[in-house]
Amino acid sequence: MSLGEFALIERFFAEGFARREDVAIGVGDDAAVVRVPAGSELVVAVDTIVSGVHFPEELAPEHVGYRALAVNLSDLAAMGAKPCWCTLALTLPRVDEGWLQDFTRGFRELAIGHGVALIGGDTTRGPLTLTVQILGLVPSGSAIRRSGAGAGDFIFVSGTPGDAAAGLGLIQGKNPKMQSEHDRYLRNRFLTPTPRVELGLALRGIASAAIDVSDGLHADLAKLMTASSTGAHVDLNQLPLSPALVDSQGVARARGLALGGGDDYELCFTVPADRLSAVRRAAAASECSITRIGVVEAETGLRCFDAGHLVTVDTTGYDHFAS
Amino acid sequence: MSLGEFALIERFFAEGFARREDVAIGVGDDAAVVRVPAGSELVVAVDTIVSGVHFPEELAPEHVGYRALAVNLSDLAAMGAKPCWCTLALTLPRVDEGWLQDFTRGFRELAIGHGVALIGGDTTRGPLTLTVQILGLVPSGSAIRRSGAGAGDFIFVSGTPGDAAAGLGLIQGKNPKMQSEHDRYLRNRFLTPTPRVELGLALRGIASAAIDVSDGLHADLAKLMTASSTGAHVDLNQLPLSPALVDSQGVARARGLALGGGDDYELCFTVPADRLSAVRRAAAASECSITRIGVVEAETGLRCFDAGHLVTVDTTGYDHFAS
Repeated sequence: MSLGEFALIERFFAEGFARREDVAIGVGDDAAVVRVPAGSELVVAVDTIVSGVHFPEELAPEHVGYRALAVNLSDLAAMGAKPCWCTLALTLPRVDEGWLQDFTRGFRELAIGHGVALIGGDTTRGPLTLTVQILGLVPSGSAIRRSGAGAGDFIFVSGTPGDAAAGLGLIQGKNPKMQSEHDRYLRNRFLTPTPRVELGLALRGIASAAIDVSDGLHADLAKLMTASSTGAHVDLNQLPLSPALVDSQGVARARGLALGGGDDYELCFTVPADRLSAVRRAAAASECSITRIGVVEAETGLRCFDAGHLVTVDTTGYDHFAS
Repeated sequence: MSLGEFALIERFFAEGFARREDVAIGVGDDAAVVRVPAGSELVVAVDTIVSGVHFPEELAPEHVGYRALAVNLSDLAAMGAKPCWCTLALTLPRVDEGWLQDFTRGFRELAIGHGVALIGGDTTRGPLTLTVQILGLVPSGSAIRRSGAGAGDFIFVSGTPGDAAAGLGLIQGKNPKMQSEHDRYLRNRFLTPTPRVELGLALRGIASAAIDVSDGLHADLAKLMTASSTGAHVDLNQLPLSPALVDSQGVARARGLALGGGDDYELCFTVPADRLSAVRRAAAASECSITRIGVVEAETGLRCFDAGHLVTVDTTGYDHFAS
């Protein structure tokens, strides 16, 4: 069955999302209109995911929908912003109502969980590509930048990076052992990563800089250090590795995935030494584990240490266009 | 030569765009931060264009860049909003610096002309797809909706619809006569349509409803009428046809293109009878021709008249997914 484009948009995108008082005009006009409260600044991020590039073509549509929004929520988390509204540009090879229904369920579930209203959409025909733009709010002047890290600040990461990359490997069948509890856990870390929105909000006024870990901890920490014109001393023995990851991959490979694997959507952030107890309280309040993995240094570059020895880490993160 | 994704983004998207005082954080962090002034509401639109679907694959990159932004500016024009900021999600099959340079030139030229700052971007690998999200401002409560038309209001359209569709036909080689002045004009109406931003701003407080004509005048006017729970009496003899269109296509086909052809990015809007002189002044001030083509009626549906006779118009507009 084929529905017209407009009926499609109306049916799947106009209903069932969070209703917000601050949406003056939602889906269905030439543009949406929302109200930004005085004293707040608007925070804007956009991320595209492409079938076969950012996720396997065979990924279930509810996971595609979940991930399309999750990667954007993660960007706002890194700014310490509260997500409020989003738009969805969906390019589809064909109309498949079942696919759309499942996709929308995954997207909607996460949107509702964060109180995010879908205020605009565009549906076009073409190869499966999804672009979400997320709009959020921070109290004026309080967004956490990448550029605020200073020498002596401690470096933290949330959760257990590497899990998502290991999960993707399992999904893509690089490991036939699919039924263990640990494997299920790892696969879910790829399929339904947890954007650290609550942690990001709690880090305002505490973290000196933050970035979300989408391309790999090593690559993203390097970007944060470059933006801050600083360097980092990272203690590989402090990397938080999940029991599932170590069980599935062994310590050496687990460490490589934690540093170089993408898709974790954890936060990597820096905290001045005099705010260590504050950051512990913030993490506890947002029910998110955080681990201190190193310290910011004035000398640029990333230096990784294993049991006190400087080691070379062979990982450059994920770069769509790297030759 | 292959550049990394991050270098790419930095090189093409961080430089040469409008600088705005209200951008606290621009391209280069996890998200952008902008300031919305008190008394204003935020207006948000998103549009995707796909190679081979919304434009011919062989279209010159500067025209792709121009059109990607123009279609979004047109959405804000229809709301009476002032465009301020945009994000660009660019999915590219490969890195081609020459292509990117030309694309960026077309995009940037239009952005600078409207004082729009590019505040965020995402570059991914995949089939050529461009999603622009545009953010603008209106004084609170003053956005022009689709739903405000009332029986007795007059219906107007800006410019001369049908030109872009004829121009696309010429570009696609359906007409071998490529060198006349008229043909060049028509092709340019497709390649570089004029988003009616100034007209839209001037229509605030005057137009009762508005929509931008992207899918064809007949289809878009029908959407406006549906949103307003009204109908329309359209006088086909009043359709504003450009001399180039009539010369190129003859009157009958010109009229069909004016009603059914897409890609015009003109505004179609309704005006209460007591504001006719106000709308003439508004159009003159924004240096945009407007033409009265009909009247809003209480009875739903579109009725087209030719020399006083009700006629059937065979056009349903452009629908990406219609079977």
